[in-house]
Amino acid sequence: MSIETTPVDLASMADERAAGFGLEAPFYTSPEIYEQDLDLIFGQHWIFAVAEAEIPDPGDYVTVDLGPHSVIVVRDDDENVRAFRNVCRHRGSRLLESGCGSIGNIVCPYHQWTYRVDGSLIFAESQADTFEYDKFGLKPVNVRAVGGLVFLCLADEPPADFDEVSQLIEPYLKPYDLASAKIAHQTDIVEEGNWKLVMENNRECHHCDASHPELLTAYFPISRYEAEDVPPRQQQIFERYLEAQAELEKAREAIGFPNGDICQLEGKATGFQISHLPLDGAGASFGPDGQQLCAKLMGSIEDPRFGDLSLHMQPNSWFHFLGDHAVVFSVIPLAVDRTLVRTTWLVNPDAVEGVDYSVESLTSVWRATNDQDRVLVEGTQRGVTDPGYVPGPYSEVEGEVDAFVTWYVQRIQANA
Amino acid sequence: MSIETTPVDLASMADERAAGFGLEAPFYTSPEIYEQDLDLIFGQHWIFAVAEAEIPDPGDYVTVDLGPHSVIVVRDDDENVRAFRNVCRHRGSRLLESGCGSIGNIVCPYHQWTYRVDGSLIFAESQADTFEYDKFGLKPVNVRAVGGLVFLCLADEPPADFDEVSQLIEPYLKPYDLASAKIAHQTDIVEEGNWKLVMENNRECHHCDASHPELLTAYFPISRYEAEDVPPRQQQIFERYLEAQAELEKAREAIGFPNGDICQLEGKATGFQISHLPLDGAGASFGPDGQQLCAKLMGSIEDPRFGDLSLHMQPNSWFHFLGDHAVVFSVIPLAVDRTLVRTTWLVNPDAVEGVDYSVESLTSVWRATNDQDRVLVEGTQRGVTDPGYVPGPYSEVEGEVDAFVTWYVQRIQANA
Amino acid sequence: MSIETTPVDLASMADERAAGFGLEAPFYTSPEIYEQDLDLIFGQHWIFAVAEAEIPDPGDYVTVDLGPHSVIVVRDDDENVRAFRNVCRHRGSRLLESGCGSIGNIVCPYHQWTYRVDGSLIFAESQADTFEYDKFGLKPVNVRAVGGLVFLCLADEPPADFDEVSQLIEPYLKPYDLASAKIAHQTDIVEEGNWKLVMENNRECHHCDASHPELLTAYFPISRYEAEDVPPRQQQIFERYLEAQAELEKAREAIGFPNGDICQLEGKATGFQISHLPLDGAGASFGPDGQQLCAKLMGSIEDPRFGDLSLHMQPNSWFHFLGDHAVVFSVIPLAVDRTLVRTTWLVNPDAVEGVDYSVESLTSVWRATNDQDRVLVEGTQRGVTDPGYVPGPYSEVEGEVDAFVTWYVQRIQANA
Repeated sequence: MSIETTPVDLASMADERAAGFGLEAPFYTSPEIYEQDLDLIFGQHWIFAVAEAEIPDPGDYVTVDLGPHSVIVVRDDDENVRAFRNVCRHRGSRLLESGCGSIGNIVCPYHQWTYRVDGSLIFAESQADTFEYDKFGLKPVNVRAVGGLVFLCLADEPPADFDEVSQLIEPYLKPYDLASAKIAHQTDIVEEGNWKLVMENNRECHHCDASHPELLTAYFPISRYEAEDVPPRQQQIFERYLEAQAELEKAREAIGFPNGDICQLEGKATGFQISHLPLDGAGASFGPDGQQLCAKLMGSIEDPRFGDLSLHMQPNSWFHFLGDHAVVFSVIPLAVDRTLVRTTWLVNPDAVEGVDYSVESLTSVWRATNDQDRVLVEGTQRGVTDPGYVPGPYSEVEGEVDAFVTWYVQRIQANA
Repeated sequence: MSIETTPVDLASMADERAAGFGLEAPFYTSPEIYEQDLDLIFGQHWIFAVAEAEIPDPGDYVTVDLGPHSVIVVRDDDENVRAFRNVCRHRGSRLLESGCGSIGNIVCPYHQWTYRVDGSLIFAESQADTFEYDKFGLKPVNVRAVGGLVFLCLADEPPADFDEVSQLIEPYLKPYDLASAKIAHQTDIVEEGNWKLVMENNRECHHCDASHPELLTAYFPISRYEAEDVPPRQQQIFERYLEAQAELEKAREAIGFPNGDICQLEGKATGFQISHLPLDGAGASFGPDGQQLCAKLMGSIEDPRFGDLSLHMQPNSWFHFLGDHAVVFSVIPLAVDRTLVRTTWLVNPDAVEGVDYSVESLTSVWRATNDQDRVLVEGTQRGVTDPGYVPGPYSEVEGEVDAFVTWYVQRIQANA
Repeated sequence: MSIETTPVDLASMADERAAGFGLEAPFYTSPEIYEQDLDLIFGQHWIFAVAEAEIPDPGDYVTVDLGPHSVIVVRDDDENVRAFRNVCRHRGSRLLESGCGSIGNIVCPYHQWTYRVDGSLIFAESQADTFEYDKFGLKPVNVRAVGGLVFLCLADEPPADFDEVSQLIEPYLKPYDLASAKIAHQTDIVEEGNWKLVMENNRECHHCDASHPELLTAYFPISRYEAEDVPPRQQQIFERYLEAQAELEKAREAIGFPNGDICQLEGKATGFQISHLPLDGAGASFGPDGQQLCAKLMGSIEDPRFGDLSLHMQPNSWFHFLGDHAVVFSVIPLAVDRTLVRTTWLVNPDAVEGVDYSVESLTSVWRATNDQDRVLVEGTQRGVTDPGYVPGPYSEVEGEVDAFVTWYVQRIQANA
């Protein structure tokens, strides 16, 4: 039995979103809209899954859970990255438990149906003579590696603009040689908030002043990066920033690194933004006063003062590439009000823990920052769940939050 | 996907309730009806929230959660009690976490939007020049203090009969001077049962004989208070009761206290009952054999043998006012099968803990009684959830349970 | 609010099941279909509840929870087994908490309404003079004891074929004298999987080779019991099996035990299968190499090498009867993805713990096997919940799984 409810027309709700304002509460609290998010956003777009460096050798795999979908990402014997549904074609048993490892074949724990890492079924006991092995291979999932980052798409027809975006991104990523990097550390935290609140929180640093003391030390303490916006009290800092920017430009020229940021956060299926900012202080990394955290630099980078290349991708990832390490974030919805944030730190493959870097120092800024963000996201989830919530106006420094919400609304409209 | 269900017409279900019988199971077990209870009962009536004594000074606040609604109850700089939605008007963050405290302004932890305790917005960083501060003050909630008890109403148009009820109640409460009292103790317990079962349990003492040995010592061991109902074996006790009643009447006259009980439990939005009963034994309080528990008496009361003034208010509260202390109960639904019972003990503001009273003695009877009631409510929740449950007939001593259910059905019918 | 969903027509879904393949995902994952299972399967069929030996004397009771239904199974003063709804007819309180015990009358803990163990109400305080006691007795539940096994049916009109099935089963159970047996041990485990996955797992031993090393030692290591199916490498074992079978046949003749298995797993409401297999090694029981686990044999059995009489009943039970003990399994759904498996070990009533048997040895094989099955069921639940799941084909050794699913589909079709 149920009280009669008025069904929600998600597309109309998306149409009615007021420009420059946050989303209405149901987008963060309705289990039905959450299911639609899984279908229309996570089921229809390229989703960042793992760093290629997590599966360096044939047989190495990671299982990635996207909502109820579990996907095996595995390097095959030809060193290609493959992806398959993590479900046996016999009785439906989960094949590989959540996590990572290395395998020869994929053997079902229930009745030992056995699949090659290319997905083909090679053993199924006691089946009739008429049984057709080639009809029961693992179901493949679309997978693409871009500059060492692996993306999945669950849709039958993935967004076509991914090729174009890949070509734009790859020149920026090339010098870091992420595919050959070494995984220094990985953390999973669960935030008790809707995945969109996690993304919105990432898409502005308006909250950084009050909440992220550790992270702030690396960045210039100015809130805008345009000369006309800078108030007199920040003029001196702004000049220091301009010097660092000029120096970074030279460093880019020295290695033929692309000049200029790209901002295509909305208006396309595979929205993204890439930007390269100098760091304050020592200018090298997230260490105290901007100091370097790993003695060996990434890939072919030679100047440790190489700033912060940040890549934001819709719907679920962001990345910081520094001269001495990279930090990679993926956001995975677990429930309408629970979200997994996975953070992975990568360093030069020759860097030796305890010699060239320590995990404690390398990871301390973002472990602290993630936890601070978790508290903010959880407070916001509680607030937007309150019937007293009404969407408020974004300020001038929350433009990228607006862009995320706009992208989300566009994609719902396109796919609903 | 879902199996087709027959929507429930709550108003029809309310219409079909058999007089003198309990409610059908869905009223206690259906999540949909629970949501309707939050809307039609808790959203449309005056709800007891806190004792004024919990927020004695300007800036003192308590947050009150009514279902998904969080309300800040705060004393403003003019010493008035104010209430606001506990949600920031910017990005929707919760402003004050559950609990109580004292503040100057209300500052959002996310981006530091800042509100005065009168709700007005005074700071919002980086907003455009056209931003209108006066459009983004905290949303107010209806609030009324009656004889030191604070009631909220979430409806745009609260029930109009509250003024009349206030005028009836206030003369009874005046001598206790609750607004100036001191909070001696507060407990929260969660009962795994629907809020209506918690209320129904409170509205009869038919279960007291077997379940509440501690509470019973204070009351006369007679089940009816009319001469014609008293069986021979209770005649002697009844005469002792009549003597105590006559003595209590004199004590009332001595201080000009209203004579006569009022019973308006149903037939109106703000249902209530107030009654004044003598106590047995020492006749003063809930101590062993009716002994006094706090050496200093409440407000202007001078005779410690001042009985038990009990106030029952629909839908969510009851109160015991004794010569030496007061106990205040509020019932807050947490889920269809989970309910918070908050109990607050108040004493004379000059009473000193360890000298005039001990928290242990003061609270022991109702801590025990609450826990005994919790067990009964939880057993009943399990029973009414069983498809084998059918509503049964109330006995002659369960009239006030019937009145509560009747009030509930009337209010559903009025608001559905 | 809710996104519009397409209601599922359960009967059509049942009709569309592909023969020889598993069920579609919603049968294991949909809360709505789970509710239908409780109604149409557990509410309309004879459900194994307890062994009679659990309630040997008048007043002994066990409460049995079938979904939200709680049933009191009690031996009355005439030594008959009775069953009643575990709900008070007054305010709906649960009468007896989950578990077992011994009582004179059934007294409600709330207001002490008192019922005899035949269900009749004998005390209800403060009711009006017109109160009719005989209208408020406990609601009875259909109950039948068959060869010492107690079955319940919640339906008003239980399946009529139960009498016929009882007559077929009883001659097999008689020599074990289960009604007089002694309960040696009982365990409850919760498996995080749909109840049908628990049953399907029980209905094949295709998974035993890889998962049940302890259980396998008792059985002949051949996968088929027909001569024409036996591969050359198993020929020698098959001959050993034939010898044991011949010996078992003689043991049956010696006590007039029915010869021949019965397989009526589908095509009728009360589906079942009974079969008698010899054991390998010592051939007596589940001890190491088939050794006996209890020194005293069951009932009137004199030859310890009496094989394994296994009884499978739809929808929720299976049984192993051996010369020296019996193991009894009941499966009780707790949620769409949670199932209780209760296992009870019975021995000769004169067997003395520590002398004739030890609980540790007696129970070790099935405690291990249950836990191994739990892991398999839970992995399958995770898999079928994945949108990547599609039903796969059963192999030739999974015929009884197919029969269970076929029975289930038939019963849904018959009752929907």
